[in-house]
Amino acid sequence: MNIVELIRKKREGGSLSEEEFRFLITGYVEGKVPDYQMSAFLMACYFRGMSSEETLTFTKLMLHSGEVIDLSEIPGIKVDKHSTGGVGDKVSLILAPMVAACGVPVPMISGRGLGHTGGTLDKLESIPGFRTDLSISEYKRVIREIGAVMIGQTKEIAPADKKMYALRDVTATVECIPLIAGSIMSKKLAEGIDALVLDVKTGRGAFMQTYERSLELAKTLVGIGNGFGKETIGFITDMNQPLGVAIGNWLEVIESVECLRGTVGNNDSSSDLMEVTYVLSGAMVYLGKKAKSIEEGIEKCRKTIKDGSAYHKLLDLVRLQGGSVEAIDNLEKYPLPKFAMEVKSSEKGYVDKIDSFELGLASISLGAGREKIDDVIDMKAGILLKKKVGDAVDVGDSLVVFYTDRENILASARERITKAFTFSSAKPEHKPMILDIVDKNGVKKWK
Amino acid sequence: MNIVELIRKKREGGSLSEEEFRFLITGYVEGKVPDYQMSAFLMACYFRGMSSEETLTFTKLMLHSGEVIDLSEIPGIKVDKHSTGGVGDKVSLILAPMVAACGVPVPMISGRGLGHTGGTLDKLESIPGFRTDLSISEYKRVIREIGAVMIGQTKEIAPADKKMYALRDVTATVECIPLIAGSIMSKKLAEGIDALVLDVKTGRGAFMQTYERSLELAKTLVGIGNGFGKETIGFITDMNQPLGVAIGNWLEVIESVECLRGTVGNNDSSSDLMEVTYVLSGAMVYLGKKAKSIEEGIEKCRKTIKDGSAYHKLLDLVRLQGGSVEAIDNLEKYPLPKFAMEVKSSEKGYVDKIDSFELGLASISLGAGREKIDDVIDMKAGILLKKKVGDAVDVGDSLVVFYTDRENILASARERITKAFTFSSAKPEHKPMILDIVDKNGVKKWK
Repeated sequence: MNIVELIRKKREGGSLSEEEFRFLITGYVEGKVPDYQMSAFLMACYFRGMSSEETLTFTKLMLHSGEVIDLSEIPGIKVDKHSTGGVGDKVSLILAPMVAACGVPVPMISGRGLGHTGGTLDKLESIPGFRTDLSISEYKRVIREIGAVMIGQTKEIAPADKKMYALRDVTATVECIPLIAGSIMSKKLAEGIDALVLDVKTGRGAFMQTYERSLELAKTLVGIGNGFGKETIGFITDMNQPLGVAIGNWLEVIESVECLRGTVGNNDSSSDLMEVTYVLSGAMVYLGKKAKSIEEGIEKCRKTIKDGSAYHKLLDLVRLQGGSVEAIDNLEKYPLPKFAMEVKSSEKGYVDKIDSFELGLASISLGAGREKIDDVIDMKAGILLKKKVGDAVDVGDSLVVFYTDRENILASARERITKAFTFSSAKPEHKPMILDIVDKNGVKKWK
Repeated sequence: MNIVELIRKKREGGSLSEEEFRFLITGYVEGKVPDYQMSAFLMACYFRGMSSEETLTFTKLMLHSGEVIDLSEIPGIKVDKHSTGGVGDKVSLILAPMVAACGVPVPMISGRGLGHTGGTLDKLESIPGFRTDLSISEYKRVIREIGAVMIGQTKEIAPADKKMYALRDVTATVECIPLIAGSIMSKKLAEGIDALVLDVKTGRGAFMQTYERSLELAKTLVGIGNGFGKETIGFITDMNQPLGVAIGNWLEVIESVECLRGTVGNNDSSSDLMEVTYVLSGAMVYLGKKAKSIEEGIEKCRKTIKDGSAYHKLLDLVRLQGGSVEAIDNLEKYPLPKFAMEVKSSEKGYVDKIDSFELGLASISLGAGREKIDDVIDMKAGILLKKKVGDAVDVGDSLVVFYTDRENILASARERITKAFTFSSAKPEHKPMILDIVDKNGVKKWK
């Protein structure tokens, strides 16, 4: 077999066999296929795509490039959730304790911030002492003890994906649905899950900005999950404004803790966040066979907030992963940023749109994310929204408070954040957060 | 500027500015842009192409990555010819002495065999002692003394192309018209020419197998040449059967010498070769202002055969470049291959087609070309056609004699060569060798 012939085959729109994919991917991991041939192949994939069968084969080989964790000794149906990433998306921090409190084990391997979006790992690491670098045996111990665990990708998991993702990032070959799907699913399938819920975001703050591309990605992901015999349900959810009120690592932990305590998330600015979180967690409880329907799953999750079991599950998780329970119990004792700046409205009317992509980039400039791979994140930096889409505003009302240690970017951040808001004279129509549900039976509108 | 953004821009079908191309190409030559980014860019070019303006800019930067030879001190209008490569294409060996004998200086930098086609350099080096690795000052001296010179690409000429071509070869990004055109023209424009004639081959034995692609390439090449202020004329010529009778390095030198001596090439099996050679050389003499029309140029070239001046120019060239004039004068004294095998017809009728692509591959298996970059060529190996398309054949007639030292491939070569011939009961229509002429005024049928 000849690697140039495989590149040419894909370039001409052909389908690669399993044997050909194995030659390519194994060769790449072993260093026999150089980066420059892989990047040409990836660009050909960008233009030519992959068939469903190829996507499954590709995912399988990425998955088996590393260790597939076996959690069969742990009782229960293990269910995880994956989100394609958004701005202010702290769903995992709230959902994992809730679902675990319902008795469904949640083994979760998450990523870091990417582009304009934050990452669950960075948010967890804003909790003093919290360790996301558990070994696989520690990972198993934590989930056995408390029914939830949240770590980062280990070197044993899908090394082909790790190497290929780094290459895609520097060769403009990220935005390709079969490659995205194979990358996501090879990592998720390695966790030891039995079932999976997917949150595919759509809109201005999502990686897939159009509904059609989001739906295509959701179908591809669900197809792979079910193709591997893991029941998979996907949701298309709205990312046209940030989720909840907080953007930035520790700020998002605060909002998540308050949602778990039940002090926010009900008829306030965090309601959209909890609307998404309940549907995703309800679907997990359903897949974990602790509820007969998604709706019943949602009700069970609501109870874990009311009875405090979800919040206590979070404290257990923080404790077992080395984090400071003291910090969670006393949120206000966290170090304060040097600057807290208010952005006020110069208009009267209603908030019509909030550009979450721009706010994501603004939060990076404040120090909440990375511009380069080795940048150090300022955990306390970020943005708190004081108004959300549909809220009435008057001249002088506070739109946002932003937090940073960086004096030199105050003016530019203020300008960028101001521009992210647009206003209308009439109250904009309320739009649902959950658009569609995608499962093995196809696509349906959600409610 | 960011290289990932440039790749993305091309991927999305955008046009790069001169500044952007400079960043990319200069960075690549200096090693700041790694191969894996360049190969992704090249694959994006394969799918998205380049505008005429981009192609000109790209060529200019490839050209100026190295030295542009200045031949202005040498009197006369310097004209070269470039062929996109075919099987049995020994035109350069006959044309350069003819055109030089007409008083038009021919500075020629050629390549080696590529894929199924032979290369002028390899053919020249089959002449004992012939040096193609002249320095630029030696190159200037030879053309000043005899009006023709034939060398290989030096390290000073278009180093960006040299590096990029090697990458394209291993990443399936060769077959892309703007990249092909930029590669060819950056080398040709570096030679010090004032005008250029192009032979763009079409058909089964050419790199461009369809007429449409060949025409597109011809238009692109002519557009670049004229865009650089060098008058350029292109011809689309037929490559559906090998040119002339010889395939293989020394065999092609023999046929070329016999054409220059006038002993073959007139109403025999080498006529198609001379039909193409006369038109191309006539156009060169016209561009060199030693004739008022291509037709007058052709007549002048014919005279150089009749009066022996072209043959003597070849002997001068061989002598000045270190080759053995004795070997040219005594063609029959060359070492003989171990095996000379006849392939006979098992059919009666007319030769309908000769698959030049298959014969090109067969000649490589005999030792006449390279399968790997560092293979050593057997200069005496090759194929002599005894019948050409349109010739009557009877059962038992000799179709081909092939020459090789490799006993183990005799049977497979015989089979491959046999399959390259197809027959018909009626005499096939005679087709012209020259299809179109492409110049600054557009495309016209030739005669």
